[in-house]
Amino acid sequence: MAEVSTETFREVSQRLRPEIDAALNRLTEFDQDCPDRLREAIRYSLLAPGKRLRPVLALLAAEACGSDLQKAIAPACAVEMIHAYSLIHDDLPAMDDDDLRRGRPTCHRQFDEATAILAGDALLTRAFEVLATEIADAEQSRRCLCELTHAAGASQLVGGQVDDLRFEKLDGTADDLAAIHRRKTGAMITVSLRLGGIVAGADEALLALLTKYGDCLGLAFQITDDLLDVQGDEKSMGKRVGKDADKGKMTFPGVWGIEESRRKAEQLIHQACEAAAKLPSGGDSLISLAHYVLERNH
Amino acid sequence: MAEVSTETFREVSQRLRPEIDAALNRLTEFDQDCPDRLREAIRYSLLAPGKRLRPVLALLAAEACGSDLQKAIAPACAVEMIHAYSLIHDDLPAMDDDDLRRGRPTCHRQFDEATAILAGDALLTRAFEVLATEIADAEQSRRCLCELTHAAGASQLVGGQVDDLRFEKLDGTADDLAAIHRRKTGAMITVSLRLGGIVAGADEALLALLTKYGDCLGLAFQITDDLLDVQGDEKSMGKRVGKDADKGKMTFPGVWGIEESRRKAEQLIHQACEAAAKLPSGGDSLISLAHYVLERNH
Repeated sequence: MAEVSTETFREVSQRLRPEIDAALNRLTEFDQDCPDRLREAIRYSLLAPGKRLRPVLALLAAEACGSDLQKAIAPACAVEMIHAYSLIHDDLPAMDDDDLRRGRPTCHRQFDEATAILAGDALLTRAFEVLATEIADAEQSRRCLCELTHAAGASQLVGGQVDDLRFEKLDGTADDLAAIHRRKTGAMITVSLRLGGIVAGADEALLALLTKYGDCLGLAFQITDDLLDVQGDEKSMGKRVGKDADKGKMTFPGVWGIEESRRKAEQLIHQACEAAAKLPSGGDSLISLAHYVLERNH
Repeated sequence: MAEVSTETFREVSQRLRPEIDAALNRLTEFDQDCPDRLREAIRYSLLAPGKRLRPVLALLAAEACGSDLQKAIAPACAVEMIHAYSLIHDDLPAMDDDDLRRGRPTCHRQFDEATAILAGDALLTRAFEVLATEIADAEQSRRCLCELTHAAGASQLVGGQVDDLRFEKLDGTADDLAAIHRRKTGAMITVSLRLGGIVAGADEALLALLTKYGDCLGLAFQITDDLLDVQGDEKSMGKRVGKDADKGKMTFPGVWGIEESRRKAEQLIHQACEAAAKLPSGGDSLISLAHYVLERNH
């Protein structure tokens, strides 16, 4: 494993989250034409306590490429908005039918189904509006929009969710499972890093390192998520444990076993750290974040 | 009333729709990572026979501002994608719960509810991707994205739908009703024209004329839609007639009566034609389109 850096993920997170949350708050105030109930539902889901993993990745990628963190605030908020929208829609009765998210009622339980669908639609739209309005350089804004619309679109995030829903009924291989997660989880993690790199003015070589780091981290994240689902403790997860396995849903521990899943996650985190170490700043914070993903218990 | 131009809406439509449909077809092929079922659902809804009113408006606005129609194909497709997504989500059981749309089963009836939600999400995302990738000039691309994300967002399209759902249970005034439709229908009609103007290089004065035309046309369109709902014939509408009134939903004929509603629609179309007549090309096609809105029977 790569050497553990001096700043732990807890410290990184404490340093960055107040700024992320303040920006998310500011960017979802909306004008008086936005109905109160819609604004409440959007903010209920978006501003709920969370790891803010994707925005932290965007900010750390910009920092690792030698830029001021402030430049990456807009992409950071945009990727969190897309994440929040995808959770709202995934939790709906027609999809995963979840009642609990981050320890609180899901959006459609707290409000109603129509409001939840529309809050998700509005968050998705707002994410792209933020990239169009809050990035000074028009070419960088356009590039961020090209990459985020692709990662959130029919071939990646949405397509991954469609296959994930179908997959519950299929008897697939570990490769099928990895392919779904690469699109459903991995693409958004990788694009978070790339957008941070783009606004930092990173060249193609640096963006390729961020992509390598993100691809490895994203898959490791999903494996550890599955491990937490079978091993975790309900209170620290904030959602019902063992639910995926109960539903007969395929998981990495189900395919590989717990030990092998853990070994593969460690291997991926090692590869991620190797890529991060080549970044201009040395990628210390990205390395400690990778260790956190492996060691987290919620 | 303004003088009827030589090219009827039928002719305008016959001239423009093949190009619009070919572009919509091309822009929703997607790569092999898009699940087949998702691609089918997207294309089932987007490519269904329809008036293509919003893309026609984008193309005619570009033409009226003296530009080549081809420049406005990307905005034209983007606004139709947003329109198709909003219909898919509005038709869902949690919202308007409609079984029939454009004479065919709605998306969630033809496929399933989860697929319909995700097809809508993917279309919304694809609309913005098209503006980011298919407009050559970065500043024009950004401006189109700013305007379309706003028109489709929490304060306009989505907010209007939230209030429309709530309004069914409220006892509002004609002004409340107009305010909802200005956001739910009007904003997308006006932005369709403005995007056509933007890619044509229109200045603020021309964009203001397009806005005036669009605002009047949009409200007239909604009034005539309500008139068709109470007076129309089920076969030519392709959806069940009188449904809004059955549900106790407030409509313009319900507030103003049929005669007064018709008079107001005529007045608005007159104002729209006055604005269009000031455009560089004389706005002949936009004028004939405005007459069509008043006289249509489906």
